[in-house]
Amino acid sequence: MSHFRSEIGEQPAVAARLLADAAAVEPIAAAIKRAQPMAIMLAARGSSDHAALYAKYLFQARNRIPVALAAPSLFTHYAAPPRLERFCVIGISQSGASPDVAAVLAEARRQGAVTVAMTNAADSALAAAADFAVALQAGQEQSVPASKTYTASLLAIALLSQALDHDPDFQEALEHVPDAMRAALASEDQAERMGKSIAAENLVVLGRGFNLATAEELALKLTETSYVMARAWSAADFLHGPIAIAEDRFPLILVESPGPTLADTRQLAARLHSSGCQVRQLADGTDRLPDATSSILFNSRLPEALTPLSLAVAAQLLAYHLALARGRDPDRPRSLKKVTQTW
Amino acid sequence: MSHFRSEIGEQPAVAARLLADAAAVEPIAAAIKRAQPMAIMLAARGSSDHAALYAKYLFQARNRIPVALAAPSLFTHYAAPPRLERFCVIGISQSGASPDVAAVLAEARRQGAVTVAMTNAADSALAAAADFAVALQAGQEQSVPASKTYTASLLAIALLSQALDHDPDFQEALEHVPDAMRAALASEDQAERMGKSIAAENLVVLGRGFNLATAEELALKLTETSYVMARAWSAADFLHGPIAIAEDRFPLILVESPGPTLADTRQLAARLHSSGCQVRQLADGTDRLPDATSSILFNSRLPEALTPLSLAVAAQLLAYHLALARGRDPDRPRSLKKVTQTW
Repeated sequence: MSHFRSEIGEQPAVAARLLADAAAVEPIAAAIKRAQPMAIMLAARGSSDHAALYAKYLFQARNRIPVALAAPSLFTHYAAPPRLERFCVIGISQSGASPDVAAVLAEARRQGAVTVAMTNAADSALAAAADFAVALQAGQEQSVPASKTYTASLLAIALLSQALDHDPDFQEALEHVPDAMRAALASEDQAERMGKSIAAENLVVLGRGFNLATAEELALKLTETSYVMARAWSAADFLHGPIAIAEDRFPLILVESPGPTLADTRQLAARLHSSGCQVRQLADGTDRLPDATSSILFNSRLPEALTPLSLAVAAQLLAYHLALARGRDPDRPRSLKKVTQTW
Repeated sequence: MSHFRSEIGEQPAVAARLLADAAAVEPIAAAIKRAQPMAIMLAARGSSDHAALYAKYLFQARNRIPVALAAPSLFTHYAAPPRLERFCVIGISQSGASPDVAAVLAEARRQGAVTVAMTNAADSALAAAADFAVALQAGQEQSVPASKTYTASLLAIALLSQALDHDPDFQEALEHVPDAMRAALASEDQAERMGKSIAAENLVVLGRGFNLATAEELALKLTETSYVMARAWSAADFLHGPIAIAEDRFPLILVESPGPTLADTRQLAARLHSSGCQVRQLADGTDRLPDATSSILFNSRLPEALTPLSLAVAAQLLAYHLALARGRDPDRPRSLKKVTQTW
């Protein structure tokens, strides 16, 4: 079995480990509450940047704290960082080794912001640059495409959100995450069928709200492991121009979860279907999409705000099976190393 | 002549008109200075969202004010907006008619934020929702793909940045913008040649720093007018995974301007070239890229922070000529209307 596939399977155990150690984020939440930051800024690259995108929705929706995503080049190349003394700044990096993410944290700390590193490498430069570090505790990730460190980052974000504003229903849902990931793993036969059914070299992935992050992460995983040109859009942004490419068997994957944006994305799906597009569905907790070319459907019973954790697992399985169907080695994509250092 | 091409040509005059009325942003800057906002949030869709991306770099680098891009669905579908009372919130929309962008401004104003609409429709819902409106004064835009309203939005942002922190060198550069756009218009023969040379259905556009916005806008224009699947990445993000797709005659366009990120993007270009990629170059003020498949080169003599205004004009010319070469009508992309309303 490839490292990628075996690490996908480890995710329920990784999540359970993080949940058991949830108290580790309490002092961080206490420090943030004391500082009363006006906003949170996140710095990250690659898959970790999709975890940051999830945080953009979760911290704003649950904690009402405005969220900005950093432009690292302003800290590195341009030496013109913004004023962050009233911010909480969070850096996310599996390896903790990307100098640009560490540079954002170091500057924010120098200015007096509350700084937090989320990393799988407790002794990394990123952890050293921050006031606080959240250990992702995912164990070594050997596959180049991230899987367990991605969902561990999502869960660390959700635990911090919960520690900032505790809610018993959300707590129950958090504790259900490992089981929800198992429900996603059980959808593997559907992922295999869908992987075999995709022949295109171009593909659009649509999501919205909390699962815009999932759409971005699925697109990146498909690009990394199978070299297809996959691009994610928010279903709303797609209507503002890019929809011009969608006709005539053009392949799209819709990422769905039950929530207030579902009606809109269903309406878009009907429009795409009537234009002759191939619409596929990756969904946790919704009905089968009428006219879908193929579907990956399961029901983890998570509230929508946590479905990015289950849907990411199913998205990884799809990327894995698409790579297998194309005879690619998902562990070692060409041109990539496990640790990417950018400035 | 198509509306798209004739509106591309109007841009020096539109810019001159906005510059002549620069005093209109002074009361807005005064109100922002009085409120001393902790951060700026921008809400926009489509091309206007790329103007917001430019603002993310310009306000942070020149004014040191942190910038966040809004997640409109939190204001509309989820009814869970963040706390924005210490923010300045700017909505950008050519038509001023997208309900989601207006909803962000209305909620921010209700909370006590300083709110600004930038729109080409002075009597729009967006203008009505805000404390202040900046009129883009671009005249009616008849082509569905935006051109002059895009660069007018960039210039409105630059004028507001200047009104917040006045600098005589930047003032001189602002006044040079219409001439810089004329220099870009004079590169049309190069845009025509490059447009004729692109046969691919997939294309990656790379930019960084201030011109990440230009890369995104070029990718959208190519998608809208020629139905190619074009995707922009920051040159740094591209290294964190997506570079796996780039080998073997894969077509990329590098957007360049003279500045501190140029050395990095040149290094990336050499790596892409050695992988056998077709690397094209769209550049204002840099040297010809060795081994480029084709180049659009001019020198507007703008400082890097304003080159998105000249490079956008050249990017529009490339999209126009690619559409012509493919026999498409650039004015009326399939599936699109001029005004897109999303919630």
